[in-house]
Amino acid sequence: MMINWNNLDTIASYEELKKVAHVDLAKVMTGANGAERVKKYNAPMGEGLVFNYATKQVDDDVLAALAKLAEETQLVEKFEALYNGEVVNTGEKRRVLHHMTRGQLGDAVVEDGVDKRAFYVEQQKRIAELAEKVHNGEITNAAGEKFTTVVQIGIGGSDLGPRAMYLALENWAKVNNTFKMEAKFISNVDPDDASAVLNTIDVAHSLFVLVSKSGTTLETLTNESFVKDALKNAGLDPAKHMIAVTSETSPLAKSDDYLAAFFMDDYIGGRFSSTSAVGGAVLSLAFGPDVFAQFLDGAASEDVLAKNKDLLKNPAMLDALIGIYERNVLGYQNTAVLPYSQALSRFPAHLQQLDMESNGKSVNRFGEPVNYQTGPVIFGEPGTNGQHSFYQLLHQGTDIVPLQFVGFKNNQMERDVVIQDSTSQQKLCANVVAQIVAFACGKEDADRNKNFEGGRPSSIIIGDQVNPKTLGALLAHFENKVMFQGFVWNINSFDQEGVQLGKVLAKRVLAHETDGALKEFSDLLNI
Amino acid sequence: MMINWNNLDTIASYEELKKVAHVDLAKVMTGANGAERVKKYNAPMGEGLVFNYATKQVDDDVLAALAKLAEETQLVEKFEALYNGEVVNTGEKRRVLHHMTRGQLGDAVVEDGVDKRAFYVEQQKRIAELAEKVHNGEITNAAGEKFTTVVQIGIGGSDLGPRAMYLALENWAKVNNTFKMEAKFISNVDPDDASAVLNTIDVAHSLFVLVSKSGTTLETLTNESFVKDALKNAGLDPAKHMIAVTSETSPLAKSDDYLAAFFMDDYIGGRFSSTSAVGGAVLSLAFGPDVFAQFLDGAASEDVLAKNKDLLKNPAMLDALIGIYERNVLGYQNTAVLPYSQALSRFPAHLQQLDMESNGKSVNRFGEPVNYQTGPVIFGEPGTNGQHSFYQLLHQGTDIVPLQFVGFKNNQMERDVVIQDSTSQQKLCANVVAQIVAFACGKEDADRNKNFEGGRPSSIIIGDQVNPKTLGALLAHFENKVMFQGFVWNINSFDQEGVQLGKVLAKRVLAHETDGALKEFSDLLNI
Repeated sequence: MMINWNNLDTIASYEELKKVAHVDLAKVMTGANGAERVKKYNAPMGEGLVFNYATKQVDDDVLAALAKLAEETQLVEKFEALYNGEVVNTGEKRRVLHHMTRGQLGDAVVEDGVDKRAFYVEQQKRIAELAEKVHNGEITNAAGEKFTTVVQIGIGGSDLGPRAMYLALENWAKVNNTFKMEAKFISNVDPDDASAVLNTIDVAHSLFVLVSKSGTTLETLTNESFVKDALKNAGLDPAKHMIAVTSETSPLAKSDDYLAAFFMDDYIGGRFSSTSAVGGAVLSLAFGPDVFAQFLDGAASEDVLAKNKDLLKNPAMLDALIGIYERNVLGYQNTAVLPYSQALSRFPAHLQQLDMESNGKSVNRFGEPVNYQTGPVIFGEPGTNGQHSFYQLLHQGTDIVPLQFVGFKNNQMERDVVIQDSTSQQKLCANVVAQIVAFACGKEDADRNKNFEGGRPSSIIIGDQVNPKTLGALLAHFENKVMFQGFVWNINSFDQEGVQLGKVLAKRVLAHETDGALKEFSDLLNI
Repeated sequence: MMINWNNLDTIASYEELKKVAHVDLAKVMTGANGAERVKKYNAPMGEGLVFNYATKQVDDDVLAALAKLAEETQLVEKFEALYNGEVVNTGEKRRVLHHMTRGQLGDAVVEDGVDKRAFYVEQQKRIAELAEKVHNGEITNAAGEKFTTVVQIGIGGSDLGPRAMYLALENWAKVNNTFKMEAKFISNVDPDDASAVLNTIDVAHSLFVLVSKSGTTLETLTNESFVKDALKNAGLDPAKHMIAVTSETSPLAKSDDYLAAFFMDDYIGGRFSSTSAVGGAVLSLAFGPDVFAQFLDGAASEDVLAKNKDLLKNPAMLDALIGIYERNVLGYQNTAVLPYSQALSRFPAHLQQLDMESNGKSVNRFGEPVNYQTGPVIFGEPGTNGQHSFYQLLHQGTDIVPLQFVGFKNNQMERDVVIQDSTSQQKLCANVVAQIVAFACGKEDADRNKNFEGGRPSSIIIGDQVNPKTLGALLAHFENKVMFQGFVWNINSFDQEGVQLGKVLAKRVLAHETDGALKEFSDLLNI
């Protein structure tokens, strides 16, 4: 099928969508009708998760218009082109193959005689072998002692995703006896970041994972030197304490400075790399290769659903299109991500990068300016903490902020307490349910200061528990949502030219090649 | 002087402000003019900090209009009314006295024969005495061993501020030999939060600080029980391991369940309580009372500046009014807080509560709806991490997001490495300088995908180092900024009725008193 890449404002079904009557959320969510919507507007996801969108400003008419939009913008066909290896990253002229780290969705992609799926699987296998050798004591420090700690050195996509996933599974792994090594992360070029981490670990029993696709990331190389100094000062050989995750063409790839090097390639963007060697090394070392394999299986289960042409059976595409409706028709600028799980404490920070770096663009995939708004600002904190922080604005502020809740029936650590006839876990779940309804329905009060207008849209993803499989499915859902939204906006979600200018200017500042404001600000900061 | 509380859209100087020509930021920041602006648009803050607003969309005309607006809205007079004890929290009919925890800015406020300043100082003194007894071993566990860890149990204002301040000073205290006890925090009702913290500490040597003004916060009482169970299971007497921070009228105040109780009152909102006993107990235990006293001094130095009627010499008021201009005239919806310091990793999360809970309101202080936008969405992460995450959208997205940078000339831990002729600290500073100029000036490129339009406004607060005094000044700056903005919008920044409905509905869910959507969602979550 011929694929057409057109701007959103040239799409006929987008014009139709704008004409569909808006849903009065507070009204439709009251009484029996509200209950019906909760039952009806449910889309099954992978690994037993469900995406419930009863409290979004949609009804059958809006959904029908969104289905037309999905069809006209050929979202599933574009996804097909992507996983079959077409060069959809038009800016950098690259394929986009992160799905292939967890499965083969379509055609084999062979380049220079290498099957890409086989390549990614091979890296997983090599990582698994290394991890097992580290765990069973075949690979040790110079004194023959086991490594107890793994420290990831990376920034951005080499940090946020792996860190969020580690935190999400750390306590689960402890309870399920698959916890192998504690993981720490060094990212910021602020020297206090590396210093603080080094102060909390025993370097003699630490294995460092240096992650940089290009092998040239300033922060990462600087922090590597920091760590090498610490190792040398402790009388240790850095080469026996470091592994690299990089591309095969990077300067790190075949260096004697590392125990081993594992590879990704240009077809996996940093923010999509949690399921590649970037996440694979640290997670396999921390929790064992089996846990990482389950995480990949979870992601794969979600990817398969994203192939479905039926919008109502394709939760990532549905979530994406509802987001487009909110952004481009209803005019909402932000999205808050609110997981009711302490394990997901840094999941919003990862989604913030995933979404804002992918879709914070003003030109289409051909480099032409677009005349409509693209990616929203994403922010969030776990519930119930957020309730006691910024929810005031979400409930009663002058702007409407669409909400993305995530909730789980069970906690991870199997320890709870009954207070006032309910467990903490029940209180946690009761709170997310209460919030959804409070935001949607509001509550009239004669005292306007205590009045809740309602009509504030949200959706919720519900699962049994945060574990490797559900986490993989959850991650893939958002990766695919972001991808589908990029398709609708006709932008390239896979490059990030917006980060370049700052790098260029920082180099000029460090070289003292400055004038004007750049020089004055440099003086203010004593550079 | 008679104070008039009027809505912003009735203010004559607001109408004038809207007519002032907009500044073309990219244009004015180029060349010698840009350099001049950096020198000129600097406002000294407390403790050697400076607020530089050269890269905001202002010029002398805009500033003159803002000064008129400040005068007409009587911002300094309103602040005076506040610190002199008037009931400016109109919703809850309360005074607002958090400034008094760090100084006496005006009249004595005496209530029921108690001088409020003396009351707050007395609590500080009692906390200092307790902390010293804990540190010198006069107060120990039952086995006569010193406490090594302090664990704060609180949520929202009893968590975010103290936690952010602790993290900001933890490494500074270690380097400066004032580190006394490690602090941990339990906040979420998710039972995994408490379980995870309990797994990392030695309860026998831990002192718990239970913080709840009302003594009825669900999350906090639940987590208290959690902790008490853990203490009992370890054969320990909880009453020997817990102190309370609460109001004198709360059920916790005179309970035998605590070693001691320290008091705040209704005149200090949770999000403004970092300088009260809420922050005082944990910070004095962690770092010693002297460090907490320095923190208060830093805040006090900033409060004094907020009394200045000259807008250009009142950095908090200036920051506030520029924010109003951006929100209500230029139409920007969000603000990103971007501290270039790993120590400030959770400072944006604290500001998120401070700002969004204070000013996320749709009614004025008399309970009447307002016809203009109020508090923005606040989000942020430390730089340089954010550069590799969401800055893409900030540089090239379709919405303009005003930016609040914070940068320091020196790091805290006095350990650094030279790579490519510069230290990490220099790289950190070079990056923030580069970003400010990149956002303001942009850079043309024939390839539109690599084009930077610029014109994206930011300000920066610059200091020597994150230490107790500068941290106090920084905190007070933002507290006062939020207060001034609330005055301009004519809203009550000191209540939070928007959090109530969720609490009511959560209780109904737990009591199974549900119908409609509430019942259906409860079923989905297995409650």
